[in-house]
Amino acid sequence: MIIVPEREIAGLITAADCFTAVEQVFASMARKSAYNFPVIREAIGHADALYGFKSGFDRESLALGLKSGGFWPRNGEQGLTNHQSAIFLFDADSGQCRAVVGGNLLTALRTAAASAISIKHLARPDAKVLGMIGAGHQSTFQLRAALDQRAFDKVVGWNIDPGALIRLEAVAAEKNVPFEAVDLVRLGEEADVIITITSSFAPILRTSQVRPGTHLACMGTDTKGKQEVEAELVAAATVFTDEIAQSVQIGEAQHAVAAGLLAASDIVELGTVINGTHPGRRSDREITLFDGTGVGLQDLAVASVAVDLAMSRGVASEIEF
Amino acid sequence: MIIVPEREIAGLITAADCFTAVEQVFASMARKSAYNFPVIREAIGHADALYGFKSGFDRESLALGLKSGGFWPRNGEQGLTNHQSAIFLFDADSGQCRAVVGGNLLTALRTAAASAISIKHLARPDAKVLGMIGAGHQSTFQLRAALDQRAFDKVVGWNIDPGALIRLEAVAAEKNVPFEAVDLVRLGEEADVIITITSSFAPILRTSQVRPGTHLACMGTDTKGKQEVEAELVAAATVFTDEIAQSVQIGEAQHAVAAGLLAASDIVELGTVINGTHPGRRSDREITLFDGTGVGLQDLAVASVAVDLAMSRGVASEIEF
Repeated sequence: MIIVPEREIAGLITAADCFTAVEQVFASMARKSAYNFPVIREAIGHADALYGFKSGFDRESLALGLKSGGFWPRNGEQGLTNHQSAIFLFDADSGQCRAVVGGNLLTALRTAAASAISIKHLARPDAKVLGMIGAGHQSTFQLRAALDQRAFDKVVGWNIDPGALIRLEAVAAEKNVPFEAVDLVRLGEEADVIITITSSFAPILRTSQVRPGTHLACMGTDTKGKQEVEAELVAAATVFTDEIAQSVQIGEAQHAVAAGLLAASDIVELGTVINGTHPGRRSDREITLFDGTGVGLQDLAVASVAVDLAMSRGVASEIEF
Repeated sequence: MIIVPEREIAGLITAADCFTAVEQVFASMARKSAYNFPVIREAIGHADALYGFKSGFDRESLALGLKSGGFWPRNGEQGLTNHQSAIFLFDADSGQCRAVVGGNLLTALRTAAASAISIKHLARPDAKVLGMIGAGHQSTFQLRAALDQRAFDKVVGWNIDPGALIRLEAVAAEKNVPFEAVDLVRLGEEADVIITITSSFAPILRTSQVRPGTHLACMGTDTKGKQEVEAELVAAATVFTDEIAQSVQIGEAQHAVAAGLLAASDIVELGTVINGTHPGRRSDREITLFDGTGVGLQDLAVASVAVDLAMSRGVASEIEF
């Protein structure tokens, strides 16, 4: 059994590696070669924790297994991050556990890869201004991955606590792109691409604040009840997603679907655009919206790459199991 | 992270250790302190494999995690056992992966413990003859654990392929108990306790073949469609189980429930008998039937014991993760 500890991940895998791996598995999902198993997510009644599994199988890459872990809100008190996970890869030819891989950084990277892939395939080619809503820990990963996808010349950002926007400013500075803190009206007026990455349970962005031609990547909603943008905005957009079943149940689209403004059959798998079986954006005035819910196959895809890299560089531990 | 490889399990944990651990977690389940999460079981469309997870949390012992693995029917061709699994324990206070434990032998031991526990609590105290239906690999574990529960003076056995009965004869000989291969009529006439442990999809044992006062432990049915005894026999018995939801859906009781002969509310959690809140057997003429479906909490309970023993004996590997 191969062990790739959490501390090795940062030195092994790049955002570009994750982009390629996630793009491939989205394409495999759209070809029906890869599928996610049902998600388990339980409030365990201890330490206020949410614990569960995301899992799946890709018949093309033979990635099989799961990510397990969850959200421990009081971990900060013991100096640990609140999100904890490990990824377990199984050998599809024998059922043996093949690898155990630290999942914390990989989760951040695969989530960032998803919104970047949506920008590559759905944003206008001439997009210049990137808008960020949310400035928590994950927002820096989303921003870093997004800036590679277009020739952005400015980042505008909003956060419920404006003090946290220095995180985004720092990432923009790394890439030599100016950053400005703005209100939501200016953010919508200026941005060609908007990423939402919050833990909100009420709409932040209004339909009236978004211009024609904008691409939105809504990345924060992964649970029943969460919401980042008005349901009417989702209904006005062409909606793409990683997995339609999750989009309808726990994604940003849940509210538009519940209100009867959108049907599951209106939602397009992003993988079909990657595969060229859906044209993606049809005009410069169309609003496109990617509902990124996060699927187990993303975790398996990036963990598989991390294992390959760890083996080739000699930093994996192998243990007879 | 603690690693306890498959090869260490046999030298670490006894059938008696597993009996105690499983009895405790059945009791915890009945007190509503421990619960199993939904089971994931998928035919992955590769190597004819069934793959999935059983998982749960025990708030009393703080055992949290899952067993993952499955059934790879062509593993024999590569010299591996068909059932492959690993058990992953998580720290309930932080969400970190605490241990990875080989799950193959532990699965056999926890399944054997369950039928033994049912015999302890439900068989007549004066039971003398033990009947075995099924003589595959798992049957030897069931027999060995069962023989400790009463002063059995004989084992009678039946298998679809009588040649395999030498397995049972060998285990009985270990314990100095005579063994006889019999037909099903004689098995029912002689046995006070009957364990069924087959992969059958049609009833083997008939109602007419079972005497009043018999205790049956039906251990083979863990999937929709499987069946070891007539539905009428289940309906005629007082039915106990590890988990009622599984008993009704994938256990031996599924057929009696589907036929309207038994209601979920008629089925008793074995843990309530262990806790003393249900009297168990009420008369020497009552037929008791334990529907053993196999739950994730059993796996977590025995893996936790294996980890404790491995640590105290210095045979666990610890790896920074």
